[in-house]
Amino acid sequence: MLTYKAPLMDIKFLFEDVLKYYPHYEKFPEFEDATPDMVDAILQECAKFCENELLPINQSGDKEGCTFDKGEVRTPKGFKEAYQLYVEGGWQSLSHPVEHGGQGLPPSLGMAKSELMGTANWSWAMYPGLSHGAMNTVQAHGTDEQKEIYLTKLTEGTWTGTMCLTEPQCGTDLGQVKTKAQPNEDGTYDITGTKIFISAGEHDLTENIIHIVLARLPGAPEGTRGISLFIVPKMTVDAQGNCGENNNVACGSLEDKMGIKGSATAVLNFDKAKGVLIGPENKGLECMFTFMNTARVGTALQGVCASELSYQNALIYAKERLSMRSLTGKKKPELVADPIIVHPDVRRMLLTQKAFSEGGRAMIYYAAKLVDILETSKDEKEKKRADYRLGFITPILKAFLTEVGLESANHGVQVFGGHGYIKEWGMEQIVRDTRIATLYEGTTGIQALDLLGRKILLSRGKSLKSFTMEVLGFCKDKSMISSNPYKRQMNKFVWPLSKAVANWQQYSVRLAMKAKKDRDIVGSASVDYLMYSGYIVMAYFWAQMAQAAYEKLGGEVENRDFYRAKIKTAEFYFERLLPRTKSHAATMMADPKTLMQLDEELL
Amino acid sequence: MLTYKAPLMDIKFLFEDVLKYYPHYEKFPEFEDATPDMVDAILQECAKFCENELLPINQSGDKEGCTFDKGEVRTPKGFKEAYQLYVEGGWQSLSHPVEHGGQGLPPSLGMAKSELMGTANWSWAMYPGLSHGAMNTVQAHGTDEQKEIYLTKLTEGTWTGTMCLTEPQCGTDLGQVKTKAQPNEDGTYDITGTKIFISAGEHDLTENIIHIVLARLPGAPEGTRGISLFIVPKMTVDAQGNCGENNNVACGSLEDKMGIKGSATAVLNFDKAKGVLIGPENKGLECMFTFMNTARVGTALQGVCASELSYQNALIYAKERLSMRSLTGKKKPELVADPIIVHPDVRRMLLTQKAFSEGGRAMIYYAAKLVDILETSKDEKEKKRADYRLGFITPILKAFLTEVGLESANHGVQVFGGHGYIKEWGMEQIVRDTRIATLYEGTTGIQALDLLGRKILLSRGKSLKSFTMEVLGFCKDKSMISSNPYKRQMNKFVWPLSKAVANWQQYSVRLAMKAKKDRDIVGSASVDYLMYSGYIVMAYFWAQMAQAAYEKLGGEVENRDFYRAKIKTAEFYFERLLPRTKSHAATMMADPKTLMQLDEELL
Repeated sequence: MLTYKAPLMDIKFLFEDVLKYYPHYEKFPEFEDATPDMVDAILQECAKFCENELLPINQSGDKEGCTFDKGEVRTPKGFKEAYQLYVEGGWQSLSHPVEHGGQGLPPSLGMAKSELMGTANWSWAMYPGLSHGAMNTVQAHGTDEQKEIYLTKLTEGTWTGTMCLTEPQCGTDLGQVKTKAQPNEDGTYDITGTKIFISAGEHDLTENIIHIVLARLPGAPEGTRGISLFIVPKMTVDAQGNCGENNNVACGSLEDKMGIKGSATAVLNFDKAKGVLIGPENKGLECMFTFMNTARVGTALQGVCASELSYQNALIYAKERLSMRSLTGKKKPELVADPIIVHPDVRRMLLTQKAFSEGGRAMIYYAAKLVDILETSKDEKEKKRADYRLGFITPILKAFLTEVGLESANHGVQVFGGHGYIKEWGMEQIVRDTRIATLYEGTTGIQALDLLGRKILLSRGKSLKSFTMEVLGFCKDKSMISSNPYKRQMNKFVWPLSKAVANWQQYSVRLAMKAKKDRDIVGSASVDYLMYSGYIVMAYFWAQMAQAAYEKLGGEVENRDFYRAKIKTAEFYFERLLPRTKSHAATMMADPKTLMQLDEELL
Repeated sequence: MLTYKAPLMDIKFLFEDVLKYYPHYEKFPEFEDATPDMVDAILQECAKFCENELLPINQSGDKEGCTFDKGEVRTPKGFKEAYQLYVEGGWQSLSHPVEHGGQGLPPSLGMAKSELMGTANWSWAMYPGLSHGAMNTVQAHGTDEQKEIYLTKLTEGTWTGTMCLTEPQCGTDLGQVKTKAQPNEDGTYDITGTKIFISAGEHDLTENIIHIVLARLPGAPEGTRGISLFIVPKMTVDAQGNCGENNNVACGSLEDKMGIKGSATAVLNFDKAKGVLIGPENKGLECMFTFMNTARVGTALQGVCASELSYQNALIYAKERLSMRSLTGKKKPELVADPIIVHPDVRRMLLTQKAFSEGGRAMIYYAAKLVDILETSKDEKEKKRADYRLGFITPILKAFLTEVGLESANHGVQVFGGHGYIKEWGMEQIVRDTRIATLYEGTTGIQALDLLGRKILLSRGKSLKSFTMEVLGFCKDKSMISSNPYKRQMNKFVWPLSKAVANWQQYSVRLAMKAKKDRDIVGSASVDYLMYSGYIVMAYFWAQMAQAAYEKLGGEVENRDFYRAKIKTAEFYFERLLPRTKSHAATMMADPKTLMQLDEELL
């Protein structure tokens, strides 16, 4: 049976000591309620909800799955009740603007909430999670009337929302979308087509579901420049927001998947379903891009959630399971064997999990701070800077954290030995659940092309330079010039980090030069380049956590061991995980020829 | 739906051109039937059986799983019929000695058979596969009477066999085994205890199941030195080999697992079940070790099977699925988009799969040649040499090939994008099925300790030196001294291989020095050391395949593209996969302190 204890102390450490959320919150009058006491209280309540309501229906939800019968979808036992508690507790509205019933707390606090819920039960968390995409779309591009009708109910959680993009013939390549939107005389549209892989596309949690659908207007240009966005509710909605009749959105089937079985993945058939246009005609994809980064950071979170849940459970098992003796002599002579945590290789796996969970959390919470600015600041320049930085860091977060999250979940299985393969323990479920994370919301390959092709090469390295300036600024501040009292201790982090960042820049320049001659270098280097970048970015956050831990230990503080563990985990990261950059560097610089020279027929 | 075409040409290439099986077979009069024509005919028949009988029940077997009702186990639909065909076809007896009804063909041919069956349907293949363990035990340690009674039926396939080692409190640490053997006056023993994770422990394929059980005699020494081996049939057997009554071996339940669902994993309760001692008292573990290497190579095979099946299906999909355009310009302007095989990153994944499948197969078949010698040679010195080499290479094969097999299966899912996560396609099943491979038959961590602690350090590097001499001999022969006409082309493989082998030796010496001061280095370095070694060993086999391909292309030969593809895949391996040694080298040489310094409570 899986257990879970929300890592509130780790979160507090990031909020207060590493990422300095409170001075950041104070800059925005909207966030005046987000005081340390309030935030702690909210997260404690959230932790209780996650530990007591969501975790207990995680494994049972996997076992039971969603059922589909005569067009109706039933979520697993307990999902509906938990959702009602969630809505009653006001959790859906937590970090949404007050104008439409939100509580106006910072998006970054919402990210912490999402982490706890997603760790306790990712499948369940997808239902409210998908709503955010729909809410953001209506918020950003809806008319006042559309906001009035749809946003309030979505913010309450009375309804949920979905994003309907993928079709059988296309996922990544949305230019191939075929779903049609036929204008009616009353200004509405008849939407007709089939959408697949629609998460939370059909369920029994709420009376209505608001679909945001990509479709083509008659005579729209081919490809991505001819796609528009529509709001299509499952049940028709009148001007007062009351649900009416069935709107011809039929669930054709549910996908039978490797994992996230408690989350309903629907095939939706739109048969002249009534919809309204949202945003300008033929600009659907551009409208979606405005909050794509937020959605992708939300998916990156899955890697952290999987890693954290797997780590917590592997750690408990490693302390209990007795097998063999330590090679340096019996550690528990009174027992029949030593607990497996004495074995260096078990520790290697546990520490890898710990380093990825905590390092990944720091990366996500850093991005969440940018989302705060992006969604709240009135200063256009500041907003633009935040957007630019977020755009740079997002593909790294999405792809790197989901890849290492999957690795971490596999380590958790491995710590359990053969028992890890048995469903009862829940460890293999974490692997199955998180396997989707490197696929949806843009595969690792797509993120990597976005990073190297668009973010790095198109900007001529500006986005990278801007980020590395920040890192080098930190390094300089913590090592050479300043009067940082932890200078000596920080050198072991700051020096390799500076060196890694310098290499990162050099390699990027070399790749840019090569790409001028051979466009295939972009696709050939991209995934290794992304992973390479990810390890360096995570190193930056581990260095920051180490610095913050030294600062805490320099003062009067309780739980000194907690901060010592941060420093030692940072040491582990720098010695044992950062060196993975070596292989990625070698591979990303290799000639694309070895990939491209084999004819299709020879493969 | 998964498809599978047995890679007979690849196998023929290894048999004839790379590993030179036929001159090797000719050394043994026992193998006189194993002529090229006969071997080709057998493998063609085997391929038909695998493609037509085993593959079609692979996905359905996963879906249906095994069922357990009132102590009875039912295998999935079609499993029993396929097993009957298998027995009727004489497949079980193929490579077993003629004295007990075997056909006396080489074990290495049996390995090729196992590969085809395991690729088409690993879960099914486990039933006959597990018999081999029992057969080898009886063959090696049984009395003439035991062989007469049990071996003949096992060889026919009329009965199957199991290995009953693991108990709830111990898997790796067999010294903790508690199952008891109480001697009876008639020379039999009453076996009492619970065994778990017993593959093929209960099923409906045969009338009897012969369990080989580890248990303790009264007053036996504690730990591993007090364990004996017993033959315990499910149904009692009389001297004529007729089955009698139920022998008090009850299946308590089946495990609900992540994958290999068609394979029944049983909890077996022995309640005064009648057994006979096999081998000397208290020497049970030693008896088992005699064929542990063979069993582990058989498990290593699972990595190759998973990689091959996933590769074949990913390749087909990559040629069909249309998405986006090549960055170097449209490749199929007549289509709505290019097939994804044009994208370098998709090729990176496919080529990684291809390199692991074909490189892994070569490694396994090399080991199989050693098994031939070990099981057939009359020359004790030659046997000892083969055993020594096999003991060295086995942990590398088992751990490295199952780890990269899992990686490869995951690439297959990734090539399919979101569709890879859907059960219907079968790609995610390959991941689930092969996830067990790094766990059973000794986890990756255990293999790594065996390699570094036992095989390298205990032998003071002799086993490594002996293997690297072979590799360096190949390098020398193909580059400098000889009149090898492909010298110039081979340099790109031979030079990096020589360098890698030199580094391997140097690092090993350094690790040995360090281990004298700090025993924790062994566990701390072991897994990285094993993976490091695995990449170098595979490079050796890719270099050999390239050389053999050049030789073929130097003569008159059909299918020239086949040999060109081998060379280009070797180039890919050397440029893109061998560099992974860099990271493993850095990590394995790191101070164990970063793993050990955190107190348990701080983790």
